[in-house]
Amino acid sequence: MGFDAPGGADVLRPVHMAVPQVGPEDVLIKVAFAGVNRPDVAQRQGLYPPPPGASPIPGLEVSGTVVAVGREVPPELLNQEVCALVTGGGYAEYCLAKAGHCLPVCESLPLDQAAALPETLFTVWHNVFERGYATQGETMLVHGGTSGIGTMTSMLGKLFGINVIVTCGSDEKCAAARRIGAAHAVNYRTHDFVEEVKALTDGRGVNLVLDMVGGDYVARNLKCLAEDGRHVTIAVQGGVKAEINLAQVMTRRYTLTGSTLRPRSDAFKTLLADDIQRNVWDLVADGELRPVMDRRFPLREAAAAHARMEAGDHIGKIVLEVDDGESGPS
Amino acid sequence: MGFDAPGGADVLRPVHMAVPQVGPEDVLIKVAFAGVNRPDVAQRQGLYPPPPGASPIPGLEVSGTVVAVGREVPPELLNQEVCALVTGGGYAEYCLAKAGHCLPVCESLPLDQAAALPETLFTVWHNVFERGYATQGETMLVHGGTSGIGTMTSMLGKLFGINVIVTCGSDEKCAAARRIGAAHAVNYRTHDFVEEVKALTDGRGVNLVLDMVGGDYVARNLKCLAEDGRHVTIAVQGGVKAEINLAQVMTRRYTLTGSTLRPRSDAFKTLLADDIQRNVWDLVADGELRPVMDRRFPLREAAAAHARMEAGDHIGKIVLEVDDGESGPS
Repeated sequence: MGFDAPGGADVLRPVHMAVPQVGPEDVLIKVAFAGVNRPDVAQRQGLYPPPPGASPIPGLEVSGTVVAVGREVPPELLNQEVCALVTGGGYAEYCLAKAGHCLPVCESLPLDQAAALPETLFTVWHNVFERGYATQGETMLVHGGTSGIGTMTSMLGKLFGINVIVTCGSDEKCAAARRIGAAHAVNYRTHDFVEEVKALTDGRGVNLVLDMVGGDYVARNLKCLAEDGRHVTIAVQGGVKAEINLAQVMTRRYTLTGSTLRPRSDAFKTLLADDIQRNVWDLVADGELRPVMDRRFPLREAAAAHARMEAGDHIGKIVLEVDDGESGPS
Repeated sequence: MGFDAPGGADVLRPVHMAVPQVGPEDVLIKVAFAGVNRPDVAQRQGLYPPPPGASPIPGLEVSGTVVAVGREVPPELLNQEVCALVTGGGYAEYCLAKAGHCLPVCESLPLDQAAALPETLFTVWHNVFERGYATQGETMLVHGGTSGIGTMTSMLGKLFGINVIVTCGSDEKCAAARRIGAAHAVNYRTHDFVEEVKALTDGRGVNLVLDMVGGDYVARNLKCLAEDGRHVTIAVQGGVKAEINLAQVMTRRYTLTGSTLRPRSDAFKTLLADDIQRNVWDLVADGELRPVMDRRFPLREAAAAHARMEAGDHIGKIVLEVDDGESGPS
């Protein structure tokens, strides 16, 4: 599923491409499900071109069966069910992944859920724990409490002893976010989240903000931060420019950082996959950590899936089902 | 030496105050020399009020002889020559310091040099190594190459294997900065430091910026940073507001942070003094690390010392000599 020129959701259409060649460290996955993510929408809009070497087809995470392995990949991986973080090409029948970026899918984990994990889990794990240094007993703030990132953050927070305050755009979403694992949910349309965070933290503020808004939210986020607080930017849906008060950064010893996942080196992603397998994957197998699923769409309805994400009414992850009987090579 | 109301350098005048009472963890120092620092100027201007509990008299570092000790302080400290970081009160005959914030002055270290060390050494050590994670083989940028901070950074960089690029306002200052230890010095009046840093680092950028300018320098500093670069703010002489590009922070994985020293807890400063004593103090004793000295003024000429700092023609540290025969209690 690709597009000829950037545009609205309806530019997405089936495209025919050769099955990709397996490199020495690659596996070829026969895709069962592909996760849909905000960067896919941005890519379709022409705002987020694929990095050099990546497939022009959208899709940053898949689940499915390994049907071919490169010469440096353990042959035992063949015929295994996996999910994988990929640099593109997920919206397809076949998708390449680095063997080191795959995680095993055990029997108890349905393939649609498996496809919904890599992008948010890799992103949240790295930015909350490795970059944001969240530790047990701390409190953090994340916007988009019912998004893939927001729900994963709430669930990981609950499992690892971090109080997660989320913001959402309606009382219904706030209620959903609380059910999913958020310690508190603030309706940002009816309440000032800065004031609410102050009240919820007895005036101390949160230790970490995981921000995907940017723009003028940054100054407001910084008002929510406790001394020695960290502010980690993972997306800029509200604008790339932010004005910060350096006196506040100095006197309260704030740290602002951020990262993007897709352009990181293969070696980095392999290390991150290893960390996740060691620290989180048992929780997934046990069923303690499962992605919040919004809706499945057949791959041929990728445009409808994008439209749903852009409308913002989804709660949790949207995935595409690759039904090879009907959708044809894409 | 104090002032009745904030203003220009000439508001400084001798004031008579009782010798301060020694608390349980304090030492009373009969001051030989007091270092002059930018925050003293800001305090005199009314822009940087002393923190709660601090002396209203300016002065953040002193050298001299311990003449009284609190009940929890090892009595061996009595009659020892020390230098100390203090929260204020340095421009005086007698000054209180926490025993844990003192460093011993060995025979080879003249007392005027000893008084010129604590503020810059504590500030640079913490912000370059502990907050900015500078490591051997890295390259960093600091403005004000002939200031107390700039010269200390260059010297510590040279001793610890970090290439320090400085900026200065004249070719003469650039030459002085290079003699002191800077790997490179850029005249910011005749050259664009962003372009120069690019050229000096083969386009990669520096790993760390130690910034005391702020304002619109921040965006320019960030253009000088390599991937995974750190930007540490320690003063905002050019303005407290900075506009940052969050896309740049994310894609290049920058970290922006900063700190102020004076309001930190006594426990933190004690730990920092311990770190410095373990890691740096032998180099001071050996003569390998000595402050660059600009000029001494008698305490009664503190106004002239401030005027010199504000004119910006000094190279290295300005200190006040407490000559108790003439200046009288102050």
